Amino acid sequence: MLKHIAAGSARTRVDLARVMGLARSTVSQRIDALLAAELIVERGTAASSGGRPALLLRLNTQAGLILSADLGATHAWLALSDLGGQPLAEIDNDITIDQEPRQVLDGVDQRFSELLAKAGCDAQQVRVIAVGVPAPVELPVGKVVSPPLMPQWDDYSVPEYFEERYPAAQIVVDNDVNLMARGEHQEHYRDVKHLLFVKFGTGIGCGIIIDGEPHSGAQGCAGDIGHIRLPNSDTPCRCGKSGCLEAVAGGGALAKELHYLNAATARDVAQLAAKGELRARRAISLAAQRIGEVLAAIISFANPEVIILGGSLARFNETLLADIRSGIYNRALPLATRSLRIETSKLDERAGTIGAISLAQQRIFSPTGVAKLLDAQHSPGK
Amino acid sequence: MLKHIAAGSARTRVDLARVMGLARSTVSQRIDALLAAELIVERGTAASSGGRPALLLRLNTQAGLILSADLGATHAWLALSDLGGQPLAEIDNDITIDQEPRQVLDGVDQRFSELLAKAGCDAQQVRVIAVGVPAPVELPVGKVVSPPLMPQWDDYSVPEYFEERYPAAQIVVDNDVNLMARGEHQEHYRDVKHLLFVKFGTGIGCGIIIDGEPHSGAQGCAGDIGHIRLPNSDTPCRCGKSGCLEAVAGGGALAKELHYLNAATARDVAQLAAKGELRARRAISLAAQRIGEVLAAIISFANPEVIILGGSLARFNETLLADIRSGIYNRALPLATRSLRIETSKLDERAGTIGAISLAQQRIFSPTGVAKLLDAQHSPGK
Repeated sequence: MLKHIAAGSARTRVDLARVMGLARSTVSQRIDALLAAELIVERGTAASSGGRPALLLRLNTQAGLILSADLGATHAWLALSDLGGQPLAEIDNDITIDQEPRQVLDGVDQRFSELLAKAGCDAQQVRVIAVGVPAPVELPVGKVVSPPLMPQWDDYSVPEYFEERYPAAQIVVDNDVNLMARGEHQEHYRDVKHLLFVKFGTGIGCGIIIDGEPHSGAQGCAGDIGHIRLPNSDTPCRCGKSGCLEAVAGGGALAKELHYLNAATARDVAQLAAKGELRARRAISLAAQRIGEVLAAIISFANPEVIILGGSLARFNETLLADIRSGIYNRALPLATRSLRIETSKLDERAGTIGAISLAQQRIFSPTGVAKLLDAQHSPGK
Repeated sequence: MLKHIAAGSARTRVDLARVMGLARSTVSQRIDALLAAELIVERGTAASSGGRPALLLRLNTQAGLILSADLGATHAWLALSDLGGQPLAEIDNDITIDQEPRQVLDGVDQRFSELLAKAGCDAQQVRVIAVGVPAPVELPVGKVVSPPLMPQWDDYSVPEYFEERYPAAQIVVDNDVNLMARGEHQEHYRDVKHLLFVKFGTGIGCGIIIDGEPHSGAQGCAGDIGHIRLPNSDTPCRCGKSGCLEAVAGGGALAKELHYLNAATARDVAQLAAKGELRARRAISLAAQRIGEVLAAIISFANPEVIILGGSLARFNETLLADIRSGIYNRALPLATRSLRIETSKLDERAGTIGAISLAQQRIFSPTGVAKLLDAQHSPGK
């Protein structure tokens, strides 16, 4: 219903009932809840062919604010936007995700305060906070589970941290790559039903869109391709196993390999490659081929239409797509690759933020989100 | 709407409008179409609290027949049922799928005639024919595409074959393993959202249920795991590549390996194992471990709740589950396997047939199916 109102494809109660084939009474009930939650407003009237003119419904983008934090292993992107998704302020800065979660989140919260101050807004106006982390997430509760890159976060509840500070906000947490897939799909590939977003950064992960919807699996760890075992490798991995794709081809592994060039992070490796350092380029190139080989198996299984490559190492190497493709085409069946498109991220560093805002909107405009909003408005604490 | 009527959760127009939140006029329109198509009938009246008693709606399972053919590489299962899915007659027999499609389908059609005769029914009553083939299928049109096991079928349209013979029927075609996944899910795992059905027969394939719905990918070849390349193997495969899982661990490959024991097909290998032949058991056991290793990567990617093993080789080996599990647990991440269930097919040889009938029902009860049925009834040819 909100989609129709937002898109303008139905803006009166009568139109909604017709377009959605719903009973008038059903439409009215839901509209009343949305009006009470102040998520929509009545503004102006529709041209009428007689009788009482119908009131026009609009999304109330001013009804509150969205804060989003897209946390990578070594870098964070933070944004403040209105409920319509319009950005009000953004910052990014270096972080070290492998610290105590409270320490990392205190840093995030400080940036959130800066964003609010910058836009002249108040924490009380925040209705949703969306956080992306480079780890598997138990989606319904927003808990981080068995995260190889950030072991101190195991079983940590991100929502609990923010609930204390933002009592009027609902908190949603997801894996960073899932958010990137969502963002890219939403912004540039809406008509694509089956899409994979492969992040080639410190770690390696994959966000999955199936039938137009994000897929995160039974435990929320679908797409965790960084720990697929490569043949003929026993490089130890942070996860405790050995021979994982990430341990061989992840940006963290490449930084270790190139430490004699003063590379400490995946971003350093990317910058060396951008400056024309051949050893960095060669390392990225070989890593890309290994990723391509693993993707060949994934493609046979999932038969996607589009694969998007993102992450800090997907940027500065003009042969990257060719390297990944060579890994894929050597191994995957022609039928699955016949019309497969392999492209680099159009949103680049903003993919996670766009995805986080989209997840936040989905939450607040869902029946659960609306119900919680109404509860919060009526609770005496507010 | 038909789901509610079939399940009895709403059996009058008023109930349907209430349960589905639809306008009365919308409900009436759709009910009229279903009545016209004779897919439902009005029978009896509901207890009334006053006013005119409401007419009870029921699924008209007698409105027509479903024919289904589940074609494997060397064996076929054929069934006749009513539109409610109740079986009226079944047969199975050996086939050789790797022949001219017309030759194979002529055999199928002859069996169809036998089934109809056995049940005292007429070909004119057949409303849907569902066919499963061990090959990738371009779903919307029912064409077989680049099938390694049955190269003569490339680009062959199965619907065209049957349309001539059964002008009153709609024809649906799908990959055999997709149908097995659908059947098993429908019958025994309705509450499971993410399920994989792995067929270990002449070939190796995987049917995918995601979010409760079959997933067949962009070109209809999702789940084609038989051609994922194994490390350290260059055994040539029928598909033209080498080192494919199927070329090493498929039942066809095992039969070749055990030809000195007079094994010609996957079923022969299974029968040798069932008789206690140790070399057959060992071959199945090793194959199961290789399958498990490939599944470990698939599990990291898809994070399913349940994996079902079916196909002729999944039956006669008590160590099969242990062998597959050992391949998986050595390589997959703990989070993805923590609550993963790995089981053998409960429907066994009937999985494909149950799935085919379910696909047939989905088709005939869909808006497109109903519309075509009405068209056929009004066409002068009938």
